[in-house]
Amino acid sequence: MSGTALLGELIEALHCLPGVGGKSAQRMAFHLLERDRDRGLKLAAVLEQAMQRIGRCERCRNFSEEPLCMLCTSGSRDRRVLCVVESPTELAAIEQATGYRGQYFVLMGRLSPLDGMGPEELGLPQLTARLGDGEIEELIIATNPTVEGEATAHYLVQLARAGGVRPTRLAHGVPLGGELEYVDRGTLAHAFGSRQLVD
Amino acid sequence: MSGTALLGELIEALHCLPGVGGKSAQRMAFHLLERDRDRGLKLAAVLEQAMQRIGRCERCRNFSEEPLCMLCTSGSRDRRVLCVVESPTELAAIEQATGYRGQYFVLMGRLSPLDGMGPEELGLPQLTARLGDGEIEELIIATNPTVEGEATAHYLVQLARAGGVRPTRLAHGVPLGGELEYVDRGTLAHAFGSRQLVD
Repeated sequence: MSGTALLGELIEALHCLPGVGGKSAQRMAFHLLERDRDRGLKLAAVLEQAMQRIGRCERCRNFSEEPLCMLCTSGSRDRRVLCVVESPTELAAIEQATGYRGQYFVLMGRLSPLDGMGPEELGLPQLTARLGDGEIEELIIATNPTVEGEATAHYLVQLARAGGVRPTRLAHGVPLGGELEYVDRGTLAHAFGSRQLVD
Repeated sequence: MSGTALLGELIEALHCLPGVGGKSAQRMAFHLLERDRDRGLKLAAVLEQAMQRIGRCERCRNFSEEPLCMLCTSGSRDRRVLCVVESPTELAAIEQATGYRGQYFVLMGRLSPLDGMGPEELGLPQLTARLGDGEIEELIIATNPTVEGEATAHYLVQLARAGGVRPTRLAHGVPLGGELEYVDRGTLAHAFGSRQLVD
């Protein structure tokens, strides 16, 4: 189709990126070839480096090039608060949206025995050890509000209590700027039931 | 934000792809790191190869690893018909949609003196030479129906006539499956004016 086998391979390889269809992959390949070869080469180099060198932080399991990530080694993060998230995506969202200054623990998944994701795979023995060392006072459980996320949260609450740590969860309710009419039933029922006294 | 400088660089580099915003770039990076490192490495390798080795076909100016592209060297393409397109994107679209078996000439742009795109930059001297060698009988002008594309088409018609070659253009009109109500005025007026006798 394209007059060159390598171009076909490039389009195919770009197609493997999430959210990139055949047309977009073709557009990307043509764009890089026609206008941005330097950036294409830069992307190739960074991609290779990243795939080879980025591992997991030994302490929080987040992505890291070093044995310990920047958040774990930072002297300015509060070591008494630990926020548990399912993946680096949620960690990034919390870092970007909130003023949270504590530390994180990244499960890299959620409890899902059928998919072979048990406590061991999520690093929970490691988390248990950290909860037991007396430094952490609050465990913020920020798993996703899905069935599996809720099951994971339930399990984490038990772990926190066993370690003498106060477990907290993110508040559920009507999103800011959302119109009640368009909020799903479950959320609205929850928000209504958890209404708070105005003081 | 992300706990690793290299990850930040990777997200930044993916962000340079057309149509990829910050969120998508992050999603791509996490996806590759969490689930698809092999494909990430494969993409890096193909990308580097493609940026370094893909050049232009000497005959039709399309992308090619070899001095002559596969379409130009193919023995099964009709050498009496030449289709002129603005870029490889349009070439690919025509190859995919039509049963065209002739050859191509890729301008890699359109006449636009203000942007420094003159006949020289579009390889028109080369095209003139080909039109003059007596092999080509029809020049299919498939530039985009924009102001600059039309100006380019006009110029190409002159070139074809000067070379004794029959110039043809793609038909304009109501798209198949389109509803008249939603077709833009200019197209509808053109289609109405160019109505054809049913035989």
